Formats: sequence, C-alpha cells, structure tokens
Amino acid sequence: MFEKQFKNLKEKSPLVECITNYVTINDVANAILASGASPVMAEELEEIEEFVDMCDALLLNVGTLISRTIESMMVAGKHANKLNKPVIIDPVGIGASKLRRKTCFELLDKVKFAVIRGNASEIKTVLNNTQTSNGVDVSLEDSICEENLESFINIAKEVSKRYRTVTVITGLIDIITDGETSYIIRNGSPSMENVTGTGCMLGGLIGGFVGANSEDVLNSTALAVAIMALSGELAQEKVLKEDLGTGSLRTFIIDNISKMNLDILNERIKVEII
Amino acid sequence: MFEKQFKNLKEKSPLVECITNYVTINDVANAILASGASPVMAEELEEIEEFVDMCDALLLNVGTLISRTIESMMVAGKHANKLNKPVIIDPVGIGASKLRRKTCFELLDKVKFAVIRGNASEIKTVLNNTQTSNGVDVSLEDSICEENLESFINIAKEVSKRYRTVTVITGLIDIITDGETSYIIRNGSPSMENVTGTGCMLGGLIGGFVGANSEDVLNSTALAVAIMALSGELAQEKVLKEDLGTGSLRTFIIDNISKMNLDILNERIKVEII
Amino acid sequence: MFEKQFKNLKEKSPLVECITNYVTINDVANAILASGASPVMAEELEEIEEFVDMCDALLLNVGTLISRTIESMMVAGKHANKLNKPVIIDPVGIGASKLRRKTCFELLDKVKFAVIRGNASEIKTVLNNTQTSNGVDVSLEDSICEENLESFINIAKEVSKRYRTVTVITGLIDIITDGETSYIIRNGSPSMENVTGTGCMLGGLIGGFVGANSEDVLNSTALAVAIMALSGELAQEKVLKEDLGTGSLRTFIIDNISKMNLDILNERIKVEII
Repeated sequence: MFEKQFKNLKEKSPLVECITNYVTINDVANAILASGASPVMAEELEEIEEFVDMCDALLLNVGTLISRTIESMMVAGKHANKLNKPVIIDPVGIGASKLRRKTCFELLDKVKFAVIRGNASEIKTVLNNTQTSNGVDVSLEDSICEENLESFINIAKEVSKRYRTVTVITGLIDIITDGETSYIIRNGSPSMENVTGTGCMLGGLIGGFVGANSEDVLNSTALAVAIMALSGELAQEKVLKEDLGTGSLRTFIIDNISKMNLDILNERIKVEII
Repeated sequence: MFEKQFKNLKEKSPLVECITNYVTINDVANAILASGASPVMAEELEEIEEFVDMCDALLLNVGTLISRTIESMMVAGKHANKLNKPVIIDPVGIGASKLRRKTCFELLDKVKFAVIRGNASEIKTVLNNTQTSNGVDVSLEDSICEENLESFINIAKEVSKRYRTVTVITGLIDIITDGETSYIIRNGSPSMENVTGTGCMLGGLIGGFVGANSEDVLNSTALAVAIMALSGELAQEKVLKEDLGTGSLRTFIIDNISKMNLDILNERIKVEII
Repeated sequence: MFEKQFKNLKEKSPLVECITNYVTINDVANAILASGASPVMAEELEEIEEFVDMCDALLLNVGTLISRTIESMMVAGKHANKLNKPVIIDPVGIGASKLRRKTCFELLDKVKFAVIRGNASEIKTVLNNTQTSNGVDVSLEDSICEENLESFINIAKEVSKRYRTVTVITGLIDIITDGETSYIIRNGSPSMENVTGTGCMLGGLIGGFVGANSEDVLNSTALAVAIMALSGELAQEKVLKEDLGTGSLRTFIIDNISKMNLDILNERIKVEII
C-alpha cells in the first residue's frame, strides 16, 4: 500500500513553500526534511511568486495570523493555482476570531485548495462558519470517537464537495476524504496533543507527498496522515518505555518520520477505506 | 504543599494567551502544554481582544520587541484588566534599550499586572529605571547568591508594593513575593542558563497556574517557579548521568514539566517562606 | 591547534547580536549558548544600534527575509563597522529571488563583512550574481566533492579578495579562506542536511568565535566551522548507534557543541591548510 506515493517523494524530493506560523515553523521545516522533501519558508510579498515558481507544493497555515502575510498568502495561492501546483490550507483556529474567519473564507473563495486540513472544530467551522471559543484547540464536544465518527465523515465529505478538495480531519481517529472515497486511520496517540504543532507538521508532510504526487492527491494525503499518526504512536511507545515526557515525544516524532519506510508502515497501519 | 493549586491546573486546563518573542515561542507553547494548560499565541491587533475574551491568563513577553506588537500588548493588557483576568509581564532586557524601557514602563503604568517576572538585573531596572549593558542576560554583579539575597528580596518587595503585584526574581536562588510574604526557592541548576528561554517558559507556566488559581496568585506563582526550577534540576541530573549536553537539557526540562507530580515536588522542593 | 581562539571564547563569553530568520532562531540562540557565547536577537530599528553598542559581533542572516528588518540590518551593519566590530553575513537563498539578491548585494556594498558564510550555490551567486532555482538549498551540481573542490576554493578566494573578507563555503567538505590561506575541513556528516539550520547555527558560532578573536578572523572562523562539523559528525554517530533519527540528530548537535573541548577537537579534526 502507498508504495508508489512513498517512492515518488523519496525520488523527487519536492520543494514545499510554506507561509506558516512562527510557533511551529522550525518543526514544520524539520518534519518536511525528515520525510525526504525540502522546505522553504519565504513569506515576503515581493518575493513570494518566485518561490511559488520553483516549489512543488504550497502550504498556507494561519496559526499566528499576521496582517503582513495575509496578502502574501493570497498572492501565493493564486499564483500556485495558475501554475497548477497543489495548495494546502491549515485553517488554524479559524473559528476563534473574525479576522481568521474572514481571511480563511476569502482564501477558500479565491484559491483552489488541493487539501484542507484541520481538527474537527476547525473543519466544522469551514462548513458552517461557526464561532469557537477554545483558542486553536479542538473543543471537547468535537473530539472524534467511534460514536460521532460517521457524523464527522459526513462533515468532511460535505467540505470536500463544496470546495472540490481533499479534506482531512485529524484527532484520535483521522479522516481523509475527497467526498467519495474516505480513509479512516486509527493510529496515533492521544499524547500527541501535548506537543504543539503536530497538526502543522502534518500540513508540511502533506505538502511534500502531494507535491510529489500531484495527480494523486487523495492517496498521497492519506499516506502523509498515516506517517504522521504512526510516527506519533511509535514515539509515544518509546517515551513510555524509557519513562520520558513530552519534550522527548516531540524529538521522537521527527525521528520516526525520518526512519519511516514501507515495511514499518504496512505492518503497523490501521486503515479502513470506505 | 501546593496541592490545591496543582490540581486546579490539571482540572481546568486554563488557556494562556501569549504575546511573546519568536526566539522561544515554541518552547513557551510546549512548556505550557507539558504542564497541562493550553497555549495560544495570537498577536495581531485586530483579533487580540477576542483571544483575551476566551483566555484564562495573558502573558506579555518583550524578548524580541517588535513595534507591531506593542499596541497589541497594550490593548490586550487593558482588555484583560477589564475582564479581571490575570496578566503576567516578562520585561526581557528592559534595561538594554530606550524602546524596551519606554514600552515596559508604559505597560506597567497602564496595565495592572498580577505577576512581574525577570532576572535580577531586569527587576532592578523595573525599580530604578537603570540602564544595563548585558543584552538580555543578568549582569554578573546581579547574580543572586546567599550574600546578596536579602537585598534582592527587598528589591522584589519594593516592586510588589509599588505595582501591587507578585514579583519573581529568578536566578540561582528564586524569589517570589507579594511585598509581604516571600518564597525563597533553592532548586534549579546553573546550567539552565545555557538553554535559551527557561525564563520565558516559566512565564508560560505562571500563566497557566495563575490562570487556574486567579484568587491565589502568590501561591500559584511560587508553584510554577518550583516546577520550573525542579524540572531543570532533574533534567541536569539526567544530562550528567548520561553524559549529554545542553540540547538534551532543553528536551529533558520539558519532559520533567510534563512528568511533574505532587510527590516528586514535595520530596525535592527546597522552599523557605519568610 | 586553535587553543588561543577556543580559550578566548570561553573566557570572554562574547555577546552576539543576531538579526536572523524565524525558522531557526531558537537553534541559533542555543548553538551560541552551547559554545559558551551569549546571544541576543533584537531586530527593531529603533533599538538596534543600542544592541550593536553592547555586542562583540553582529550576525545578519536573510533566511526569511522580511522587509521590516532590511533597514535594521543595514543600520546595524554600518553601526558595527563604525565601532569596528566584526559583522558576519549568511546570504541564505541569495540566488532565489530578486529581493534577496538586491538586499544582499546592497549589504555587501555598504557594509564591510568580516565573514561571508554560505553553501556553494550561495557563494557562487555572491561572486557571479547568478539566479538559482532550488530554494535555500544547494543545487546538486554545486555539491562540493573532491573533484570540484579546487574550483570552489578558487571561487571562495575570489569572493574574499573582492570583499576583503573571510569566505566560508560549507558542504560535505568545508572551505574557509581569506583569499590567501585556506582551511579545508573534512569532518561533518551528509545527514546534517536533514536538519534545518545547521548553516544558521554555524553563523552564530562564527559570531561568537570571531567576537572573541576579532584580530584573528580566519583562524577563529575555521575553529567555528570545525566545531560545527565535528559536532554534527559525533551526533550522527550517536544517532546511528542508538537507531534514532533526525530529531535526535538536531538535539545531539547542540549537545556536542556544548561538550566540545580541545582534546576532542584535536583528536578528531581532519583539516588541511593550503
């Protein structure tokens, strides 16, 4: 499973241009490098089109929204669309402020996204323009479990249909869908929420895998999600075994991304395709 | 000791809104998460009040002062005051430039702070508006030891009285005072100065503990200081035992914050209340 | 070898003022601290001269070029020149955009640099104003090996002569030259490219060693390069031995910088002076 998509990344080493937040910018760069892709983090309006020219995928993450970069995001997104390069959006905390809702919906309106990735609260907001009050975290009621899984699959499918995109909801269970086919992945560890930026890192990984497989967005996105979830799961096993904590967990997540191969993946992956 | 304050944080998982420097912003977020609280790092003027609305505490850290965020800090601080939410200031390098002195004293003038945290040079500058020439580090003459401890306790008390606040001076010995009662904590390790951002991380921890215990600022601040110092001390023991260095020290500090519990704390804490 | 330069840093603990990119700003600060020097990351125009006044060396890194800091870099560089303090430039991705070329060449024109550090593609661009299309990475054809070593030594020498500076090209083999004498260092590990910011960290180390040895820029720069390369090499050995990955590699690089001493250095260094 995922053999072609995995090899494509390793062979092409795609360049992922990221306009992302400063909290986790280093982790995003290191996650991309660990996967075998290459990151660049230019964000200045005057040079952004040149970086889109040379990249294989563009990641827009509004984690610490800064007025100065909103126009860069818009220009970069449109330019990538013109060049037919995949664009990924991570609408961090979209429900938390008017500015974030306005910015994200304007981006969703003006730019065609290959992938939208968020937690359950964020993807619900993408669908319903709801306000949330939990900062950038998922709200408790939106925590994905077996009981509410189907309703969140439906939300993701609706988002995919409305925006003609692949939608990813990450949580204890991960959902990846293009509106028709859906991957459900049950890897990962709850403790990943105790490290900042695991979602942001995943955005970077998706950029690399989709950049190397731009004709195959659904499968390459599912692969990126599987690698992230499994890397977190393996990292947490090591943390428990060695009686460490969340600092080591962060380090080991990157370690496992860099050590991931198809054997480990196929042995450990818990995926359902519906 | 500290039982109630510790449990409150774990139960409430308070949201700490941080306007902080980009050098250590990731460490601050991960330290807050490790403690059991939740961070958010919005800083854009247009959305800052909405994040203050939903947070339990506000942290202002001027480590890499950027003009753009000065007004955000002012607006956020005043709004938090209006909502009666605790505000913490970390006046990093306050003595190093006119802009920092001006900004910090304006903040101290216009915003009521629950806690002021700095190294000895910074807190001296808060009291005396002195100029320093050592960047953001404590000057050698201001390094706290048993010989000058009393004079620094007095400085901290004066700051607390002037600004009706809890004052924290961190160093080889940590001082926490509300102007009347003072905690003196003798945990930690000198090697913590070889990792950037241990002071910033502490600011984040104080945000969480004070956010969960807003009626009990002195004790919850002392708890945050104790956890940070003890986490550094335990981390350094592991670094020495395994012959590692300051990269691992940084990781293990976060590890120990995430593993901290009342048993470890009460067994190891060296605290004096005067 | 390098005894005097090494001891000078440990004794003087020089202050390195850095205007640098946000991707690796934390790593640069921690690398500087690990070496025994002291970092400060002020970048606001209004305060930058005061920080140059107190620093021992100034590092300018354009990794994520932001309009706002371009003038700060220019003012800081000129002010450091006036005070006769060494300035280091890291022209990250100089060939990747018009803005970067314009900014870097303007800096090279107006500011006298003690050291220019880049990968082979970047230093070629400094010499020939060539455009590159590989983001901030070295292009494949510019990867230094024994076969093309001489031509890159000549490029570095020409840059040194044109700008009366020490030029550093880092890669699988590192070149340090003042236009006359050249150090060739064959330490390091290819896997260092899988961690973001090893070049940026080296810029910080150079700042510290040159700041502590401002009359001896060539030798102290070579020492910084040797420490970085050897720290990466030792880190990668540990990663392989313990079956870890690139997250641990990053941590161990900092560990080894902090543990470096003259015995380890002289035992392991592979240096040729020509």
